[in-house]
Amino acid sequence: MGSKLAEFAALMQLTRAADYAVRVMIHLASQEPGKRTSVPEIARAVEVPENFLSKVLQTLSRRGLIQSHRGVTGGFELSAGGRTVSMLEVLEALEGPIALNVCVGECGACRRKSRCPAHKVWVEAQEALAGVLRRASIADLARQAA
Amino acid sequence: MGSKLAEFAALMQLTRAADYAVRVMIHLASQEPGKRTSVPEIARAVEVPENFLSKVLQTLSRRGLIQSHRGVTGGFELSAGGRTVSMLEVLEALEGPIALNVCVGECGACRRKSRCPAHKVWVEAQEALAGVLRRASIADLARQAA
Repeated sequence: MGSKLAEFAALMQLTRAADYAVRVMIHLASQEPGKRTSVPEIARAVEVPENFLSKVLQTLSRRGLIQSHRGVTGGFELSAGGRTVSMLEVLEALEGPIALNVCVGECGACRRKSRCPAHKVWVEAQEALAGVLRRASIADLARQAA
Repeated sequence: MGSKLAEFAALMQLTRAADYAVRVMIHLASQEPGKRTSVPEIARAVEVPENFLSKVLQTLSRRGLIQSHRGVTGGFELSAGGRTVSMLEVLEALEGPIALNVCVGECGACRRKSRCPAHKVWVEAQEALAGVLRRASIADLARQAA
């Protein structure tokens, strides 16, 4: 428990990778269709070091949200599926399903669930959070950024 | 990033300690005023191993939410302040201020904030989540459990 109680601990904080993935998706969504953007160009736009960015791009690519093209005219662009995703889908592509507590995770594993008065609060809290992230479309955010 | 991408990763998940702290507070809030509850009794009620529970109890005590009494008639009870807390306050007592992303944390450190289209989504998501947890009073949950 020690490290979690450090002076600058923060409750329920996202990883840097997931934050950066959202920035990348918004940036690519703001480009002309068909345009391929290079890693240095993305790094500058989203203000993330190239080496860390490469890992994020690999994951987004593996999850089918962006497409990578090799060669001198290479670079990254959104995949067809990537054009319609929400912030929630981007975050989950990086870190797996949202689950504030184990009882509201995908496997929902807690045997106290049926009689625990906190369980319904966790359900409501998670739905409130996920709802906001689900309604935030990457394409809309890119339009706002333009 | 590797470990965050493990098969069973979960986005924004709370620590076990914070989950257990909520259970402990609800259990103590359901006791008669003045009753002192022993560690083994709490461990049984909240279904948490005693050794891990002791650390949670120490933290809740240090944060002023519960009171510890030593000796044969010793045990734990809610402090005056602990009787009126919300789930959010219990969680924050364990892990520090809620901060889904650095830009919505206490120091709000992100120089992209003013022009980042995702920032207002983070603000809204965090407020939706914190709002549910803030409205959930430990005393109310204890009454529901009774």
